[in-house]
Amino acid sequence: MTDIPMPKYRQIADDLLKKIQTGIYPINALIPKEIELATFYGVSRPTIRQAIQLLVNDGYLDRRKKRGTIVRQRKIVQEFTHVIASYDQEMDNHGLIPMTKVIMFTTEVADNEVCERLNLPIDSIVFKLVRLRYANDQPIVIVTTYIPYSVVPHLSDYDFTAVSLYETLAANNTAVVRVQRRLEVIKADETVANLLNVQQNEPLFYFHTIGHTQDSGAIEYSIAKYRGDLNSFNIDVSL
Amino acid sequence: MTDIPMPKYRQIADDLLKKIQTGIYPINALIPKEIELATFYGVSRPTIRQAIQLLVNDGYLDRRKKRGTIVRQRKIVQEFTHVIASYDQEMDNHGLIPMTKVIMFTTEVADNEVCERLNLPIDSIVFKLVRLRYANDQPIVIVTTYIPYSVVPHLSDYDFTAVSLYETLAANNTAVVRVQRRLEVIKADETVANLLNVQQNEPLFYFHTIGHTQDSGAIEYSIAKYRGDLNSFNIDVSL
Repeated sequence: MTDIPMPKYRQIADDLLKKIQTGIYPINALIPKEIELATFYGVSRPTIRQAIQLLVNDGYLDRRKKRGTIVRQRKIVQEFTHVIASYDQEMDNHGLIPMTKVIMFTTEVADNEVCERLNLPIDSIVFKLVRLRYANDQPIVIVTTYIPYSVVPHLSDYDFTAVSLYETLAANNTAVVRVQRRLEVIKADETVANLLNVQQNEPLFYFHTIGHTQDSGAIEYSIAKYRGDLNSFNIDVSL
Repeated sequence: MTDIPMPKYRQIADDLLKKIQTGIYPINALIPKEIELATFYGVSRPTIRQAIQLLVNDGYLDRRKKRGTIVRQRKIVQEFTHVIASYDQEMDNHGLIPMTKVIMFTTEVADNEVCERLNLPIDSIVFKLVRLRYANDQPIVIVTTYIPYSVVPHLSDYDFTAVSLYETLAANNTAVVRVQRRLEVIKADETVANLLNVQQNEPLFYFHTIGHTQDSGAIEYSIAKYRGDLNSFNIDVSL
């Protein structure tokens, strides 16, 4: 396959992509009509249609009935394992600027569910950390995390707008080395819709995560709601 | 923790769960009121409330405003890796009866997206296999799969209501040994809603999978839509 020159429609798709990435065609803007592009590139309309189809398939363009073809807000394609290890690093990898707001950071008496997940006796005290995480100023995910108070009582000294939870746990000899995650989908309720800046009932990823330390103790129980329109996750599985 | 006897509310939760699993409390039926259960088990209402909370958290029960507490349709918690390897086996593992309907099985000229994913020259011929898969007579997932015609031209001899695609590929010296999967969420459109027996706009898992053989060739491109209300996936990740 390496000997075959890149077909014309691929070259045009690459050129259109460059114009999208440099903002010549901004997000939600219409790109020129097929006939105009055909004239510009000196090719037939079917060739232009092939090039556009490729960018539609790859999620860069969207055909809108009657209006034409618009530039789409692309999803952030995250490596599933990476984003668990470090949200900030994974955003960096994609050239996106991460930002974290701490919505709530408190201690409370854990409810039964949290005690179950963290293998704690009933009515144990836990830290409750609620973070809203952004990429390029767009809200991406809201995460509620429970950590047993007894394990790292001085966790409250940290500012989780600035430091990573996993790095903080590692620095306190309680590194998370294995996570179990359950994947579900839900609709955004009113509160979450407001926080994530989406319409109510939009689909969200809904992940429950239990983080374990080396000695297999559960040290973290997190509930995350990711915007469905902005996120996608890649997983590689060897069978 | 092993020396502590199981708390009363846990014992009651286990007894209630047995009644759910044996159908004494069927799906969508109300369970008895808190006060009745307190009398029956000879405990306080807060203890009953704790037991019910546990079953709510685990997805067996659902509190409905004004009506009371009902038995929920539980999600099938699938091991992510297992269900990729074999849908039938994973359903078996959960005591569910798998069934597959072949909605379409044909050859066609692949569109550009499919050619890209399978590393095929433009306008290659592919098999297109559309399967609707069930567990206990409920539709769980609809999967559209593309396989290069040239690799296994006699694939059409097989009846995929009865045999597994991955086993068939393995039997033809083209075993899938590694898959790349992209996870997204979408809303059900009218067609998919009808096939999966859900309301339109309900959230679905939306997976794109490329299956690779040992020599790294892409041999399978699949697009799957899983019901969000019936499915959840477990993933274990070592960091």
